[in-house]
Amino acid sequence: MSREQQELRLARAALSRLFEPSDAVGLALASVVGPRDALRIARREIGVGTAVHCRLIEALGIPDGSRRPLEDGLARWAPRLRDLAPERDLASLDRLGGRLVIPESADWPEALDDLQQAAPLCLWVRGRHDIPPSARLAALVGSRDSTPYGSSVTADMTAGLTTRGYTVVSGGAYGIDAQAHRAALATTGGGSHVSTIAILACGIDRYYPAGNEELLRVIADDGVLISEVPPGSSPTRWRFLQRNRLIAALSAVTVVVEARWRSGALNTAHHAAGLGRPVGAVPGSVQSINSAGCHRLLRDGTAVCVTDAADVVELAGPFGTEPLGDRARADAAPVLDHDGLTVPDLLLLDGLPVRASTTVDKLSVVAGLSPREVISGLARLELAGLAIRAGGGWRRERR
Amino acid sequence: MSREQQELRLARAALSRLFEPSDAVGLALASVVGPRDALRIARREIGVGTAVHCRLIEALGIPDGSRRPLEDGLARWAPRLRDLAPERDLASLDRLGGRLVIPESADWPEALDDLQQAAPLCLWVRGRHDIPPSARLAALVGSRDSTPYGSSVTADMTAGLTTRGYTVVSGGAYGIDAQAHRAALATTGGGSHVSTIAILACGIDRYYPAGNEELLRVIADDGVLISEVPPGSSPTRWRFLQRNRLIAALSAVTVVVEARWRSGALNTAHHAAGLGRPVGAVPGSVQSINSAGCHRLLRDGTAVCVTDAADVVELAGPFGTEPLGDRARADAAPVLDHDGLTVPDLLLLDGLPVRASTTVDKLSVVAGLSPREVISGLARLELAGLAIRAGGGWRRERR
Repeated sequence: MSREQQELRLARAALSRLFEPSDAVGLALASVVGPRDALRIARREIGVGTAVHCRLIEALGIPDGSRRPLEDGLARWAPRLRDLAPERDLASLDRLGGRLVIPESADWPEALDDLQQAAPLCLWVRGRHDIPPSARLAALVGSRDSTPYGSSVTADMTAGLTTRGYTVVSGGAYGIDAQAHRAALATTGGGSHVSTIAILACGIDRYYPAGNEELLRVIADDGVLISEVPPGSSPTRWRFLQRNRLIAALSAVTVVVEARWRSGALNTAHHAAGLGRPVGAVPGSVQSINSAGCHRLLRDGTAVCVTDAADVVELAGPFGTEPLGDRARADAAPVLDHDGLTVPDLLLLDGLPVRASTTVDKLSVVAGLSPREVISGLARLELAGLAIRAGGGWRRERR
Repeated sequence: MSREQQELRLARAALSRLFEPSDAVGLALASVVGPRDALRIARREIGVGTAVHCRLIEALGIPDGSRRPLEDGLARWAPRLRDLAPERDLASLDRLGGRLVIPESADWPEALDDLQQAAPLCLWVRGRHDIPPSARLAALVGSRDSTPYGSSVTADMTAGLTTRGYTVVSGGAYGIDAQAHRAALATTGGGSHVSTIAILACGIDRYYPAGNEELLRVIADDGVLISEVPPGSSPTRWRFLQRNRLIAALSAVTVVVEARWRSGALNTAHHAAGLGRPVGAVPGSVQSINSAGCHRLLRDGTAVCVTDAADVVELAGPFGTEPLGDRARADAAPVLDHDGLTVPDLLLLDGLPVRASTTVDKLSVVAGLSPREVISGLARLELAGLAIRAGGGWRRERR
């Protein structure tokens, strides 16, 4: 690794501890002067000239030329300077077998750049696999208090996605998240294809929530654990909300399996929609409060209705050559006698008795067709195996 | 009734027996020359001049000047001329206590004119109530083989609609249709407000299907029975499909409660969508084949997701002053501690311990805020009853 790369890693690691996720001023500063100088400014080792100040104001989209945003930022970051030790954080990362992924390195997921000013400073990553291209990542998210229905749909959908080569992204929480991770790990059995990624609101060394510790340990091994906050960081409500933007930005599609009327999963869905990423919602019983959030997304047009993995794949876009969900189901639907008939032939078929036979004249009256139409129609239905001559007349034949 | 009105009634009654529903040539003829002359032409009492012929060709949108469509029509209608007896049909209607509603009379539902060339010739109607304005009509349709879930949702939705002053329109079939009619009749108990309308594919004197005879008798009394085909007519597949267009055109909104991947209810939904009428679909389990048709409508954008009567009313449009479904639910949702907080105050709230108290300096580090922001934020949280001074520091207070 070049000296510059090492300095950038160190600076980004440090800034990711100083700044809360999506700290607009901090991210704008890092983008305007680069992470190394941003760290020096945060440490008050160097000042900010007028030119940098102007570019910062412009990046933040603040109309007047007030100097407050940076002063506020410096005041906000100062209390954390005393304990700042990026070398120690990177050493912890090493001990965990993890790596720091930064925008300047080749393994940076470009999809995150769609977050623009809100793109994370770096990703703290554990797991022996690389992060697959976003086109292969499908996020499944939902309530912590999932129902048996939600768990069952999550398991089926996950299995369908992983067997089609997708990696299932989720948030490592109880309920739908945990079910998605578990089903993904179960499907691939730790093969070369990474089955699941958990994006955490806390450091990747913390197994939160405690009940998912065993699961998160397995993901750290066979899947990938990602966080934008350094090891040791606690999960806070703010970090959960910001973590959701990473799930949405990293994945080609975000699916909400079960969610209450108010649920963090809806926040993830709205992040995805805001980024122009397709969003799916799984319908459920209107009597289940755990589907109310999904129905809300369907109703307000944020999400498209998805019922299985094929629907999700179709929504995810160009990767893969799966048959369309709808087409597959249409192929599976039974062919009915009247499929493909013209209107006169349909009227005629409806008029044909199943048991006793009838005459052309009677069929004319019943079907409302001329005798000529009846005769030619009977010939077509006979060819199609739907009409049969019987007792000097005609009756219906079941195909 | 004027002599002209009587003649028009007689002509339209006769044509509704000669022509199958939506017979394009027949309807165009009646529209170009009027129903009385159309009947004379069908009876070959008068011929068709070039001017009429041209207008007919134009009305049918046929590019070349071929005379075939009318000849085909005449040949199609001829077999039924022998038994044509509109006076007898109108006398049967009288005995049933019914009435013929024609476009020339004041009680014609104007909404049917949206069908343009496919508008019915007349409506054969039973029931002591007038047909309410379309803005108050909501169609609930669905599978004949409904599930307990579908029946329960239909009953709830119907009760919610009828108590809000809506009349529930359906097709008199088994399953969802029957449940909608029954629930509507049960809610209003035969008061002045007509609770339900059944639009049939057969004559209004025939109780089809047989298992719904008792129900249809009650609707003929306390609700309204409508058909475009004369008394005695059998239900055929074609008439079912065409009947669906009447349900869609008459109602302000059409809701599919349960439907398989292929279902007649989808046909009704597509008629409604084709007319620019709003369409709703009730979501259900993705594991239920009886909801697959609803999910199909949601997925392809034909229908909007509706979960209760409030959603349907919102979709139906301007009639009524009900609160929006979503707004009502948002009002009912619990207020959470962090609702309405600014980001710094949210960060601060997350950082406040629930049990032991903490200091401003520690809060600065934990929350990533400057001491000044912490102090002013604590004052706001204290005012909101979310923070409390304790032991020389601060801790969180549950609201």
